[in-house]
Amino acid sequence: MISQNRNRIRSFHAPERPRGGVKPRPFSRKRFSNSSSRFRPAENQRPPLKQTTETLSLPKIGESIRIIPLGGTEEIGRNMTAIEMGDDIIVVDAGFQFKDEDSPGIDYILPNTKYLEERKEKIRGLFITHGHLDHIGGIPYIIDRIGYPTIYVRQFGAIMIQKRQEEFPHLKPLDIKVIEGDETIVCGKIRVSTFPISHTIPDSMGLIIETPYGNIVFIEDVRVDNIKGVPTEEEERQYERFKNMEVLLLTMDSTSIEKPGFSLAENVVTENIEKFIKQTKGRLIIGTFASQVERIIAIIKTAEKYNKKIVVEGRSMKTNLEIIKFLKLSDIKNIIPVEEIENYPPDRIVMLVTGSQGEEFAALMRIANKSHKYVHIRKTDTILLSSSIIPTNYKSIVKLKDNLYRSEAKVITYLDSDIHASGHGNRDELRWIHQRINYKFFMPVHGNHYLLCQHAELAQSLGAPRENVIIPDNGSIVEIQDRGDKIKILKEKAPSDLVMVDGFAIGDVQEVVMRDRKMLADDGMFVIVAIIDLKTGKLRKSPDLISRGFVYLRESQELLGQTRLIIKKTVEESTRGANPINFDFIKDNVTDAVSRFLFQKTAKHPIVIPVILGV
Amino acid sequence: MISQNRNRIRSFHAPERPRGGVKPRPFSRKRFSNSSSRFRPAENQRPPLKQTTETLSLPKIGESIRIIPLGGTEEIGRNMTAIEMGDDIIVVDAGFQFKDEDSPGIDYILPNTKYLEERKEKIRGLFITHGHLDHIGGIPYIIDRIGYPTIYVRQFGAIMIQKRQEEFPHLKPLDIKVIEGDETIVCGKIRVSTFPISHTIPDSMGLIIETPYGNIVFIEDVRVDNIKGVPTEEEERQYERFKNMEVLLLTMDSTSIEKPGFSLAENVVTENIEKFIKQTKGRLIIGTFASQVERIIAIIKTAEKYNKKIVVEGRSMKTNLEIIKFLKLSDIKNIIPVEEIENYPPDRIVMLVTGSQGEEFAALMRIANKSHKYVHIRKTDTILLSSSIIPTNYKSIVKLKDNLYRSEAKVITYLDSDIHASGHGNRDELRWIHQRINYKFFMPVHGNHYLLCQHAELAQSLGAPRENVIIPDNGSIVEIQDRGDKIKILKEKAPSDLVMVDGFAIGDVQEVVMRDRKMLADDGMFVIVAIIDLKTGKLRKSPDLISRGFVYLRESQELLGQTRLIIKKTVEESTRGANPINFDFIKDNVTDAVSRFLFQKTAKHPIVIPVILGV
Repeated sequence: MISQNRNRIRSFHAPERPRGGVKPRPFSRKRFSNSSSRFRPAENQRPPLKQTTETLSLPKIGESIRIIPLGGTEEIGRNMTAIEMGDDIIVVDAGFQFKDEDSPGIDYILPNTKYLEERKEKIRGLFITHGHLDHIGGIPYIIDRIGYPTIYVRQFGAIMIQKRQEEFPHLKPLDIKVIEGDETIVCGKIRVSTFPISHTIPDSMGLIIETPYGNIVFIEDVRVDNIKGVPTEEEERQYERFKNMEVLLLTMDSTSIEKPGFSLAENVVTENIEKFIKQTKGRLIIGTFASQVERIIAIIKTAEKYNKKIVVEGRSMKTNLEIIKFLKLSDIKNIIPVEEIENYPPDRIVMLVTGSQGEEFAALMRIANKSHKYVHIRKTDTILLSSSIIPTNYKSIVKLKDNLYRSEAKVITYLDSDIHASGHGNRDELRWIHQRINYKFFMPVHGNHYLLCQHAELAQSLGAPRENVIIPDNGSIVEIQDRGDKIKILKEKAPSDLVMVDGFAIGDVQEVVMRDRKMLADDGMFVIVAIIDLKTGKLRKSPDLISRGFVYLRESQELLGQTRLIIKKTVEESTRGANPINFDFIKDNVTDAVSRFLFQKTAKHPIVIPVILGV
Repeated sequence: MISQNRNRIRSFHAPERPRGGVKPRPFSRKRFSNSSSRFRPAENQRPPLKQTTETLSLPKIGESIRIIPLGGTEEIGRNMTAIEMGDDIIVVDAGFQFKDEDSPGIDYILPNTKYLEERKEKIRGLFITHGHLDHIGGIPYIIDRIGYPTIYVRQFGAIMIQKRQEEFPHLKPLDIKVIEGDETIVCGKIRVSTFPISHTIPDSMGLIIETPYGNIVFIEDVRVDNIKGVPTEEEERQYERFKNMEVLLLTMDSTSIEKPGFSLAENVVTENIEKFIKQTKGRLIIGTFASQVERIIAIIKTAEKYNKKIVVEGRSMKTNLEIIKFLKLSDIKNIIPVEEIENYPPDRIVMLVTGSQGEEFAALMRIANKSHKYVHIRKTDTILLSSSIIPTNYKSIVKLKDNLYRSEAKVITYLDSDIHASGHGNRDELRWIHQRINYKFFMPVHGNHYLLCQHAELAQSLGAPRENVIIPDNGSIVEIQDRGDKIKILKEKAPSDLVMVDGFAIGDVQEVVMRDRKMLADDGMFVIVAIIDLKTGKLRKSPDLISRGFVYLRESQELLGQTRLIIKKTVEESTRGANPINFDFIKDNVTDAVSRFLFQKTAKHPIVIPVILGV
């Protein structure tokens, strides 16, 4: 039974509207519609990349089942998979990925949903396995493109989605159905049931999708609760449901397949944190991921047990706290506003803060670099970094640690004490799950290609025949054929070009822009403004030069002087005998001559833009 | 005794001139001399940052000793330290640091040598502890600034320096003196002796600098050879020299202080690699750091032992191989050129390649992404990544692994087998060295601030009084006063602004340029060209708009059309009633109006550059 508790979700309003941090980015594609071309193409503008707008022509699906990972199989993040049977499609998750150095200036990367956009009348539902951003972050950008299907999700995720949606007031209301228990949901002819799994956020679930040839089991982000490598009874019980189940296809998270053994048990982490909460003299400041909701609940409970006041700082941490409060997941009595932090003795204060990755404007970073309004770090403070080092955050974490050490506060990391565990199962946890499910086909997901390969090797080492293990890419159309006898990847592929959120723009044709940004970042730009006397073909005056990000201009007068002479010479050579003057020819010559000269003198390749005017 | 074997070094020429990879960057500052200002400052150009050109005014040094770390104490890399006594200065190391995401487009970061430039007549020698780039890479950029002092270095490092210098033909010849044994070198009144230490490159050494108050001991990059945590007899012997030595100050590498215990012994690594060389069916491709010279020698010897042919690919690997050959450190008979790789059965081939960090144009990356001319990867190949993951290279290593797995070759990393050890001692190795040296003062170097703090904590845990342990920053002037009684950091600081190599330019006033590059990388640029009729104050025609790295222009016609209207309106409002027309006023108004409009429509902040001309 599915409770229609949209009202309940709607009625939720955080008493405090989150401020600062990430700027809401309401989305309107209309502003970028293709009107007729009145724009004069900029000089040097490269031709646009081929757009794949044509509809994919595929063989009829017939009795086959298609599984199409649209994201999360060539990277960690932007998870999304479509399952297609007959006239029905269901979608699992709609995450985004954070930008990296390969995509300067952009906000997020989304799964490419063109395949679904072309078939949106077939979509019967979007299932969200849990409320982390790599599973829900794409919803506001994607939901209208795929026709606002009903979203099926458990309670905690439902509120996470709803909270986030408040930042996109232009969008239509979402149709969210909260899954309460192990009920079966009917989406067209597809029947889906769910089951709880262990992760780091409440209400994480797996999916069982019925097919005429056996079930498809989706286990997204997952770990196995364990005591020194022995799974708990609760875990044993959860996976008992698969004991006699005929599973056609298992698909599972591969994020931590590289790590040997079992991961550290979360209860060891919370016990260690409890020791710090109990024993620390002075203030205890705990930095962790806001996504570690279960740990946050445990810390709040423990702090209350020892009669400590709790201060929560950081936008995402506060948002999650509001949800925890709203759902009464913890009895929060001892939370005090940060402004009151000085009203209590230091050893009665526990702070829970964002920013353990050294994010520039997050709470802990502001505390560390002395820009926080209320919290001034002291020698007597103890800071627990209850988090791992995400490799791409390495440099900012180093900055954070340097700043914390400069304050002479005590800093404890996972290297010093077991105060962090991952939400993604290590190799032996994944093996344990494999051994509990009697599947025919296996498809690893969630990870870079090499991680998927390692997960496939694990399945084969446990007896899965090689031809029954499929390693997909984003956009691979995996088809189960011959009434469940065979699995293969079709030669046709769903569109999988990068789709980026860049300010208000969302699109997959940003490669020219990205390339320019990288060139500008390395070598800057150099604009030449020259006015030609149409009668004489000579320059009316010395050209203006405007540059950014190239060399330090105030120390480069000689270079600029020489460049002006080269421009003058090039223009006059290019106009000699020409009637009328060919501006494109002049521009090309000036660009070539100046680029060559600047490179020769500086070893830099700025983007040279000539503005040549005739009067 | 110091051998004057510059001739020997000079006579060394690699039979093959290295090509590709890093482009040589001959250095000439003259091109950027400060001539009088003829340049019209670009619109919006921010004011230049304050330049610290004034000479530092310091108290007289008297009988004190100054130790000034100029690099390597707030980062890993660009190591350089000056020691000043009376009228004499000696310098230890002159490294560089590779760029990172905070410094787009630049090539390297150098130690700031202004302190030395102002005192170059006092410099009596530059001591190089070993031939790695974070200790020698700065020499070509720095040596003329500090007056070409004699360079004292052991043989392997001497040739590394000389080889690199060939890429800078404009520079004067270096005065290199090769240190053969444990002899004492006299530099002015400073007497220096050296001793061998364990690292990953031959001829690594420590320094003992005599002072009237006891010795100063420099232990730069160091590890302790050990068998399962027990230092070898050779190590015991090396450190015996300190048994009865009165050490005034010890300074030591802190790079791996965070890692507990002893690091893996290099002989375990080479034994494991030997197993692979012996047993692997098919070709064995070993990717490692070219800086791991001792491992490379071991691999070459082992391959010869099993009668395998060796192919060496990658520029720095080949360079180091030439030096190994030249110094007869290994009897290299079985090396074959890559072109002949197909002439031998696969299981007789061992390749030694650069690129284990996924560097874009390095040998292994070219092999992995199928762009290598001669080496085409096969399912039957085995690839050993005999290296760690440097966190800042994480993304490129993932790309490398993805590509290797796509070829279905077998990939072995340090996670699978003990095939890599670091050259930097872990915490217990550093502790072991501390326990062998009876020092009064301690100063940790080589690492970010928090690593130095952790090393200082180690010294204190071993009994060093807190006031005897100094944690310096780059540019800190550490002074040993009162005839060796006291150590402190002076309140005056040597210049420590970042000095960057950016093409041919070397300087410390690049912050404006860096800031612009970051802005351009995130949001691009937007140039407006508008021509005003001086009589009417109106635009002569619709303005030209040129943009790069902002939005995809061909899909933004409506935005551009609206922007033109805003420019027209703003210009005409700004000229109304003005006589003569105030161009700066118009430019400011246009910049403001367009920036605001573009941000409102796109959530992007491109650098807006108005070019407003009157005719």
